[in-house]
Amino acid sequence: MTSPAPSPDLLARFATIVGDRYAVTDAAEQEPYLIEQRGLWHGTTPLILRPGSVDEVAAILKLADDTRTAIVPQGGNTGLVGGQTPHHGEIVLSLTRLARIREVDATSNTMTCEAGVVLANAQAAAQQADRLFPLSLGAEGSATIGGVLATNAGGTGALAYGVARDLVLGLEVVLADGRVMNVLNKLKKDNTGYDLRHLFIGAEGTLGVITAAVVKLYPRPRSVETAFVAVPSPQAALDLLALAQQMTGGGATTFELMARISVEFAFRHAGCRDPLADQHAWYVLLEVSSTQTDGLRRRLDETLEAGLEAGLIIDAVVADSLDQRAALWRIRETIADVQRYEGGSIKHDVSVPLASVPDFIAEASAAATALIPGCRPCPFGHLGDGNIHFNVSQPVGADKDGFLARWHDMNDVVHAVVRRHGGSISAEHGIGVLKRDELARTKDPVALAVMRTLKTTLDPNNILNPGKVVSL
Amino acid sequence: MTSPAPSPDLLARFATIVGDRYAVTDAAEQEPYLIEQRGLWHGTTPLILRPGSVDEVAAILKLADDTRTAIVPQGGNTGLVGGQTPHHGEIVLSLTRLARIREVDATSNTMTCEAGVVLANAQAAAQQADRLFPLSLGAEGSATIGGVLATNAGGTGALAYGVARDLVLGLEVVLADGRVMNVLNKLKKDNTGYDLRHLFIGAEGTLGVITAAVVKLYPRPRSVETAFVAVPSPQAALDLLALAQQMTGGGATTFELMARISVEFAFRHAGCRDPLADQHAWYVLLEVSSTQTDGLRRRLDETLEAGLEAGLIIDAVVADSLDQRAALWRIRETIADVQRYEGGSIKHDVSVPLASVPDFIAEASAAATALIPGCRPCPFGHLGDGNIHFNVSQPVGADKDGFLARWHDMNDVVHAVVRRHGGSISAEHGIGVLKRDELARTKDPVALAVMRTLKTTLDPNNILNPGKVVSL
Repeated sequence: MTSPAPSPDLLARFATIVGDRYAVTDAAEQEPYLIEQRGLWHGTTPLILRPGSVDEVAAILKLADDTRTAIVPQGGNTGLVGGQTPHHGEIVLSLTRLARIREVDATSNTMTCEAGVVLANAQAAAQQADRLFPLSLGAEGSATIGGVLATNAGGTGALAYGVARDLVLGLEVVLADGRVMNVLNKLKKDNTGYDLRHLFIGAEGTLGVITAAVVKLYPRPRSVETAFVAVPSPQAALDLLALAQQMTGGGATTFELMARISVEFAFRHAGCRDPLADQHAWYVLLEVSSTQTDGLRRRLDETLEAGLEAGLIIDAVVADSLDQRAALWRIRETIADVQRYEGGSIKHDVSVPLASVPDFIAEASAAATALIPGCRPCPFGHLGDGNIHFNVSQPVGADKDGFLARWHDMNDVVHAVVRRHGGSISAEHGIGVLKRDELARTKDPVALAVMRTLKTTLDPNNILNPGKVVSL
Repeated sequence: MTSPAPSPDLLARFATIVGDRYAVTDAAEQEPYLIEQRGLWHGTTPLILRPGSVDEVAAILKLADDTRTAIVPQGGNTGLVGGQTPHHGEIVLSLTRLARIREVDATSNTMTCEAGVVLANAQAAAQQADRLFPLSLGAEGSATIGGVLATNAGGTGALAYGVARDLVLGLEVVLADGRVMNVLNKLKKDNTGYDLRHLFIGAEGTLGVITAAVVKLYPRPRSVETAFVAVPSPQAALDLLALAQQMTGGGATTFELMARISVEFAFRHAGCRDPLADQHAWYVLLEVSSTQTDGLRRRLDETLEAGLEAGLIIDAVVADSLDQRAALWRIRETIADVQRYEGGSIKHDVSVPLASVPDFIAEASAAATALIPGCRPCPFGHLGDGNIHFNVSQPVGADKDGFLARWHDMNDVVHAVVRRHGGSISAEHGIGVLKRDELARTKDPVALAVMRTLKTTLDPNNILNPGKVVSL
């Protein structure tokens, strides 16, 4: 077991590694590392360590392992499942000072980033080299490369470019005992033994601490076209996606489904304007991209016409300016946030096989309203990935706390539908503490046993983010 | 330690699991499972087991684990590093009877294959559903899904679609002790705990036996255009690749570099005709694909014109018929095989960062000819992946055995250049026994230690393909 409260003497030894300036003990200074953005959790810690080098990270973990001291690694503190929060007074290991982009290699289409590089800065560095780093998500102004890899983040670019895991060529990882593993290569093909990258990507800092990564870059799109499309149903949206991929040669880089109620919240609370004259039950934000400068708008128009003819589209508008494009995106981007103006919201970040999305939405909506009559399902999300954020707003006028008290009941009925369709109860946010116990109840028992075996093997003293992902 | 020679009684217990008909002991019947196609190895075994179900695989491994009996899993027996061969009289576990395609889900773009499905059959099943399963390699008529996943095969489709690892959504794996791990899902996004797929993909059957997989399907290209292009240098080829990806919107699906000498062997020994009037130092087989039916030839022509103007292309011919296309492909496909008519050939399956390919080829060629004056480097391969098959033919008239006796010396000098460029000594063929000791000498020591830890943890009795990949 890890010791619950490190002694003042031990804390001083940790502080010495990074120097006093980067050993944060002041309560006000600590605050941004301890709060969770939605107020779900508030951590406590005697000490936040902000190492400035991989060697310092290694020294910290070695001391932690030797003294059985629990460590919570942290990037930009934007995680949504409580994985980066010290729930039990653990020492926080903040990676934000490892913020150097070590190299951009435009010819090899690779970029080598330290863990603390902010995602938006990584995107900007790629753009400066006339390349695209396609990982993109709401928190990109704060989220770090280390954090998005540790949680295997998804986001809006996953349709075309894959999730965070798919964008990694090489890794540098500090193991629980302080050894530094360097598989930081720039190779697309490397079959020299077991793939160790994917053990640490998505492990939420429980198996090792990622300190740097080589990520993939792509040719930068020269043209982008954005459409806001009303569709009769999720099934029509799915068929439209297949049509768009066929007609644009896989050029659809965004395909976000939104139920009417979710965009209505954006109109009501975020000042967004409805881009279409009439109201419709379902919408798709469709974006196509190309590395060519011309011809894309024509291909999009042809796609929309074909969709209209096939009955997959009721109405559509295409952005004619960057301002119009931004306005369309803003509808999608505010959806999650503006739900709070409608009272309590119970969230589900789930995925199902693509073919099951329409049935999932119908069945989960029915199950939710059967559980709490009057509740308002607001499904939206990355349809092309089968990833629906199935958020449920409280009934109008209901008691918020009373509604939120049924969080787990609601999860149970929605996740039961997910499982019936062979889906995942955490598509892109991870497990952290929020879904740990449910995972333990529902994961394939052999897979869960292998996970526990890996945890106890790679972190025998359970110092790395203990209690997250798997409980031992 | 595993017992070297199972007793007749124990062999009978194994045979009972699959039934006598599928317990192969006859020497002639065993032969195809024991030979290595190039004659590098010839295995021996008292028993080849051909289970017909996952349960039988599980029962075999449980008995093997209980009795410390070594097992060599095998697919289509096309591996190139000795990984599928029983070098020390182990029992062979052939997966070829698990040959059912359990499902093709065209809407979700997934296919669920058992391990023994032959790669070409998987491709055909996808095509029947109007989809593409893009993994393609020379041995696809014999290689199995289980084999290509266990070795993380690459092939000619990797440029556009990634290596085998990138094509897998879910896995079913029998662990060393016979437990069946089912993470056989069809999800693009699944962040419920550690990624266990990638532990077993590329592990060459040393950590578990893959019995089924869910693989990704893609829209089937509606048009394909193929060009045979003479380029002044590998650097020009690299620049042409970037130009082609830019101008075709990432439509380049094949980009194979070939040195003059390698295609000359194909002309001389395989009856291939030189498609160009003059001789040139370097060639590229360039193929572009599109899900659209028209416009592709124009885009290819524009690309070739731009390449000519930029000095990246000296001459080029575009296939005007399927026959012409086949003739161009045949040049590339026979290169590796026809080298044997030129005497001994020492092979290297290496990769380097894309930007380093030109320097690597120049430096490795110089190093090879410095070691053995008169030897003939024949570099060719998947330039877009940084993966060069750097094969070296013997000097004209030299003694073949004498030349081949210097295999390891040649490997040493070529791999030294690879390492200097941060490359991999096994890009797509794996480690097996062929490169195991070199891997142990050259891999990052911490990564190697983690590999050994994983092996001893997941296969504590060392029954799964012992001696392959890592030695303990």
